[in-house]
Parts: sequence; structure tokens; C-alpha cells
Amino acid sequence: MVKKSLNKISPLAPQIIKRLSPVEGVSLYTYCANLYNKQRNDLSIFLFHRKSFIAEVFTKSSLRSATLDWNSKALKGKEVQAIIVNAGNANTFTGRQGERAIEEVVKTIASQFKISKKKIFVASTGVIGEPFPTQKVIRAIKEKKSPSKNWIDAARSIMTTDTYPKGISINTSIGNQKIRITGIAKGSGMIEPNMATMLGFIFTDAELSQSILKSLISKFIPNSFNSISVDGDESTNDTVILTSTNAKKMNKKIHSINDKRLKKFKLDLEKVFLYLAEQIVRDGEGATKLIEVNVTNARSRLSAEKISRSIANSPLIKTAIYGRDPNWGRVIMAIGKTYEKVKKDKLKISFGNYLVAKNGLANPKIDERKLKRYLSKDKININIDLSNGKEKSKVLTCDFSHRYIDINASYKT
Amino acid sequence: MVKKSLNKISPLAPQIIKRLSPVEGVSLYTYCANLYNKQRNDLSIFLFHRKSFIAEVFTKSSLRSATLDWNSKALKGKEVQAIIVNAGNANTFTGRQGERAIEEVVKTIASQFKISKKKIFVASTGVIGEPFPTQKVIRAIKEKKSPSKNWIDAARSIMTTDTYPKGISINTSIGNQKIRITGIAKGSGMIEPNMATMLGFIFTDAELSQSILKSLISKFIPNSFNSISVDGDESTNDTVILTSTNAKKMNKKIHSINDKRLKKFKLDLEKVFLYLAEQIVRDGEGATKLIEVNVTNARSRLSAEKISRSIANSPLIKTAIYGRDPNWGRVIMAIGKTYEKVKKDKLKISFGNYLVAKNGLANPKIDERKLKRYLSKDKININIDLSNGKEKSKVLTCDFSHRYIDINASYKT
Repeated sequence: MVKKSLNKISPLAPQIIKRLSPVEGVSLYTYCANLYNKQRNDLSIFLFHRKSFIAEVFTKSSLRSATLDWNSKALKGKEVQAIIVNAGNANTFTGRQGERAIEEVVKTIASQFKISKKKIFVASTGVIGEPFPTQKVIRAIKEKKSPSKNWIDAARSIMTTDTYPKGISINTSIGNQKIRITGIAKGSGMIEPNMATMLGFIFTDAELSQSILKSLISKFIPNSFNSISVDGDESTNDTVILTSTNAKKMNKKIHSINDKRLKKFKLDLEKVFLYLAEQIVRDGEGATKLIEVNVTNARSRLSAEKISRSIANSPLIKTAIYGRDPNWGRVIMAIGKTYEKVKKDKLKISFGNYLVAKNGLANPKIDERKLKRYLSKDKININIDLSNGKEKSKVLTCDFSHRYIDINASYKT
Repeated sequence: MVKKSLNKISPLAPQIIKRLSPVEGVSLYTYCANLYNKQRNDLSIFLFHRKSFIAEVFTKSSLRSATLDWNSKALKGKEVQAIIVNAGNANTFTGRQGERAIEEVVKTIASQFKISKKKIFVASTGVIGEPFPTQKVIRAIKEKKSPSKNWIDAARSIMTTDTYPKGISINTSIGNQKIRITGIAKGSGMIEPNMATMLGFIFTDAELSQSILKSLISKFIPNSFNSISVDGDESTNDTVILTSTNAKKMNKKIHSINDKRLKKFKLDLEKVFLYLAEQIVRDGEGATKLIEVNVTNARSRLSAEKISRSIANSPLIKTAIYGRDPNWGRVIMAIGKTYEKVKKDKLKISFGNYLVAKNGLANPKIDERKLKRYLSKDKININIDLSNGKEKSKVLTCDFSHRYIDINASYKT
């Protein structure tokens, strides 16, 4: 049972899939391990040349993948020598077989590349509950390969129901040192705030300690990967990692993320996080519209988040936006069902710049024709001003279309 | 903007829509107030002949309908003389206009039927945020009407996206006294445990005090109306009421719901609650299959409920069932995303009698052909045995189909 992506590329995909530049200090190898019925690359290995660090965020699911149990134990040292990622099988709910699979796979990588077993990070994505295809993966790893020059190959190899590969390269700097950041991600369904069915791998050649990486990932995750939703279904395998190869040495080491030399780098790194998270929503299963939910002036951050997520996950709102229906009554419903105390008479609801409800009732002055034209756009903003405090929350999501049903109801054996 | 029901009757509807018997002590009047573009009854008034009692459960939404504010205030006495229900407009987010509408409507009913304004219960269902059509409703109420003999008329008049009227009459007894219970309900979308977008009205001619009614409604709501879900969207108007007309006097009054004479009556009343709740799911927007989620042996009732609701509300599971796909990996996902601690190696997942996962992995002995045949049925049970304690939870839901999207994405001005 493998979900079919029904092939058609998301209408919200970027016009051009750009090249992705390799990051100094890492080599990428991609393989076809025959994990799908068709000939495609489905396995990538990133090999680090020198002492490199890793920081990660995992799903909070109580039934998470065996890979995450491995990573938690194996990577206590926070040093990484290799990352292996496969699509086609999530290695989740695979029992001892799944655990043994990881042991055999990392043993093969260790001997193939002459590195330590304990510094190998493992990620899997795909079907849950099917035995892990250990031998296929091992056979692939043993092939002779030359490193890939365009890292879009890696982005392509980790696609499942994704309709296009997601990645970004940015050339930036820290002080006088030229730095590169390249990130790739996958994800399309089973996406919900608090990590989606997504994998995100972000690499930089900057010289950054593990504790700096950890601070950076914690800083940028909440507004990026933790602020997106496709279907409200959180996966068992969600993983985002940030690595530094330390290839570009600094004269004076960086000891704090508040170091002024990091200013430009942090802005660019945040761009990478936001870009990748947005691409996952743009490739949301069956998506025809990107929806940005902005809740402002809430009495607490938690209250703002509850409301923004309730709106972003409401099937009734998502189908209304699909149908270009300015049905703000459903927004009222989604706010109300959080049980959060709100001021009915002060709250304002807008679609883009079009105020549809205020003072406790419909805005009688709304220009229906213009509003309808707005709702035919690719990206729709739903703005809720609660006039109830100063906190805010933003969530990116997509609409719910016939294709979502097509993709997810397809029986495959 | 009125949702279209796209007319076709749910494939899960009962074969025959039965007559509903009036309850002694109440008269039903139904009207066409022209709240829809087409000629249909959209308004019902139940008029009580003698001292009658009412107990109610409302939505917990923090942006609830003006009608519920009215009811909370007006019905402090817990006596009821009339109930008015309209479809076509929810009287929610209608500001002062909505409040005034209720005042004018109840004034009209009070003068028309010569009863007290303060003993009138009001319920509305339909579009949120549009001014309440006060004059249309008043004009209808002023018509001369004779009481309806088949209460299915009332069930029909409160339909919105419902595809068939929902009701049940049971003849039962308390002690030697013959008693009747008739209940009607509506609801199809915006349905989620904790009251759905639903209205439920249950009448009996038994002599029962308000406090007995209250105990009975509290007893039967949790496993009926609070254990159903269509789309996880909770409405602003949800209401279930239970009334007693006291027409059938008892020799000795009933002072406790544990009174032995109530035994048969309670069983039959529970049937009414369960039947009506199930009908709402059977008429779930676009439903093609009824899904019963049974979580057993959980460590707490709350844990069982979190898991059963997470499964029942998962779009990925609902689309899989629609597609007859035994994708239990998605069930694993839905359990995991509750963050509830579970014993991976002990938990069992079955579709009906077909055990698909146990001992922390897929059941290798599953007969795929028989399982597939089972998944083509109208009603699918998803059973989760957590082997983690003794508590349980059951939720009824339906699948997610193309028609759900058709119904909810239709733009109407």
C-alpha cells in the first residue's frame, strides 16, 4: 500500500526548480534502492568530511518511528559523520525487524565509508507498518557512486506524495567569511503544526558549535515547521535537522547566537526555514490555494495559537476557500470551538484587506464582487483581530480539494 | 450563502422514513416562512398544553448563537410552554439585530398562543452571520394552522444540509402507565463530539420533574450526541433538549432516576438518544460509510476518548475508509499524535474481526481478500485494544468523500 501522488505537479509549486549548491564539507550520494515499483532514486547519503555537528527536532508522537529511537541514542555526542534518508518505508511499527534493519544499515555504511556506526543519523519516510526492506537498502549502499553536484537530487530522492522537490541554497556570510546554507525538505500529507510528515535537512559550512545549532533550530522552528498544517494529522517520523560542517573557519569562534557577526546569517537561515516550511504547504496533498491564517491581538500566545490552528485545520473552512466561498461564519465556528474567551463585539475578520465581520455582525459595506475576485487568487489571507490583547500567531495551510480525496482514498496493494 | 445539500439522499439512510407519533400534551405546527429559495417548511412550533418541563444541553462554543443566550436566561424556571425552531438562519453573530429578532418572535408567539414570553424556548440552525429574517418568521407564525399528526413534518422542517428527516417514536411504559417517547434531530455537517451542529428534541408524555429530566439527559448524552463526529467542526448552535408533558400521571410520583419503575423507560429513552445520534452520522455530509471507533483497555477514560476522537477526526483515516484501504498505519499515526503513552508491543488494531496489527508490527496472517471484502461494507468498525488498563470509548463517525468537498465548496450568493 503505497500512496500514489497522482503525479500532477502542485499548482502552487515554484515556476522553476532551481539548482541546489553543495555545502563544503559534505558529499551527497543518491541511489535507487528499488523501494518503489518505478525506477527512481529513493535513498540519499550525506557524508561529512570533518568534525561536524547536528541539532534536531523530532515528532512528539507517542508511536514514533524506530529511526528516531536510534537517533536519540546514537547521537548523544551530537557529532555527525553521515545521514541516510530513504523514502518508501517509514520504518514505523516494524518491531524488532525495524530495529535490526537500522543496525544492519548503519553497519554497512560504517564499513563502506570507514566511519563510526555511532555517528550515523537515520531518517525514513513512507508507509507505516511494513517490514523495512533492509536488503534492498544495503544492496544500494554497496554500489560505487560519485558525489552529486546538484543537491536537488537529494530533495528528489526523499519525495513520497510530494509532487516536486523542495530545496533552497543561499550564499550568505558571517563576519568576513563567505558561508553557504542549503536546505531540503519533503512533506505533503500528514502535516500539522508540531512537526509535519516531513523531513527537513539544513546544512551550512559555517563553523558553529552544537550548542549554537541547537539555539538556532529552537529559534526558527516555531514560526516555520511548527506553523504549518495540511490535514491536522501529525506523523510518526517528523524530523528537522540543522548541521554545520565547520569547513569555513572563523578567526574568533562564535560563542553566542547573539554574536553580532551572526546577524545576516540568522536572517538568511530563517529564510531557509520559512521557505522550506512554506513549500511543504504549497505541495499539500491536493492543494489549490495557500492559506495564511493570522490571529492578532490575542490575550495570550497560547490563545492565539489555539485559534489559528483551529481555523487552519477546519475542513469546513478549507473546503470553503477551495470553493472561493467567503464563508466567515465558519471562521466564527472555528474560533468558538476552541472555547477561548473572545470579545464578540470587538473581533474583526478579514479575507485579505476585505473586512467581512466587525462589531458583532457582518460588515454591510463589503464589496462582494471585489471579495470574490480576491478569493480567486492563489494565496488567501484570513485575518482575525481579536482586540483582546497583544499576542499573535500565524499558521500556513492549504485548501481541501477533490484531489485530497483522490490521493488519500486510492487503494493500492 | 446557503449550503446546498445536493439533494441526493445519503446511502446510509434508513430504507423507510417511518411516521412519528405525536406525544400527548404537545401540538406541533409547521410553517413555510420562505427562509429558503424553494417552497419548503422551515419553521416548527411545539405548543405544550399543561405544565411541562425541559432540560437542555448546549454547545460549549465561546461564540454561540443568540438563541442560546436567550434560552439560558428565559428558561431559568425550567418550565416550557412553547418551542420554536427554524432552519435557514442560525441567528449567530447577528449582533443586536439577532437579539431583537428573538424578542419580537417570542412576543408574537406569546400573543398568538396566549402564553408567557418567558416560557418559550428558541432554536435556530442554518447560516451564521446573516441578519435574522424576523418579519418572514413573524408573518408565518401569524398564519392559522392545524396541528400536524405526523411529527416527521417537524423533522423535515429543521433540515439544512440533511438529506433525510430523522426521528423515532417508541411506545414504552413506566410502571403500569403507557408512555410514548418521540424524538427528532437534525445535523449533517459541522459535527464533532461535544454537541454537533445539531438540534435534538426529545418529547415524552411521562410525568417527570425537571430534575429527573436533567439527570436523564446527563446520563444519555455522553454516549450518544457527544460521541459522534462528522468533520471535527463544533457548531455555535448545538442543542439537545428533553421535555416531559406530564400528561400521563403516575399514582406515585418518581423522585429518583434509580426508581425501578423507570427501568424499561430508561432503556427505551437511551435507544432514542442513540438512534438519533447515529442518524446524524449516517447523514454526515457526503458519507458513504458509517465508522465505529472502539478504543478499549485504556489507562483512563480521558485517554480512551482522546484516542478515539483523534482516530474519528483524522482526514487520512476517513479518506482511507472511503477508499476501502486497510491503512492501519494511519491509525498508528492518529494514536501517536495524541501524545498518550501507549504500549507499542501490546496494542492491537482490528478492522471488524480482522486483526491487522499486534505485537508491535503488522499481522502477517491477515487474509487480505477477506479484509478487502469487509471494507466494502456500509459500516466499518475500527477496534483498538490498548492493553493498558480498563477504560474504553466509542465514537461514531463517517468517511470523507468527494461529495463532502462538493457540498462544502459550493459557492452560493
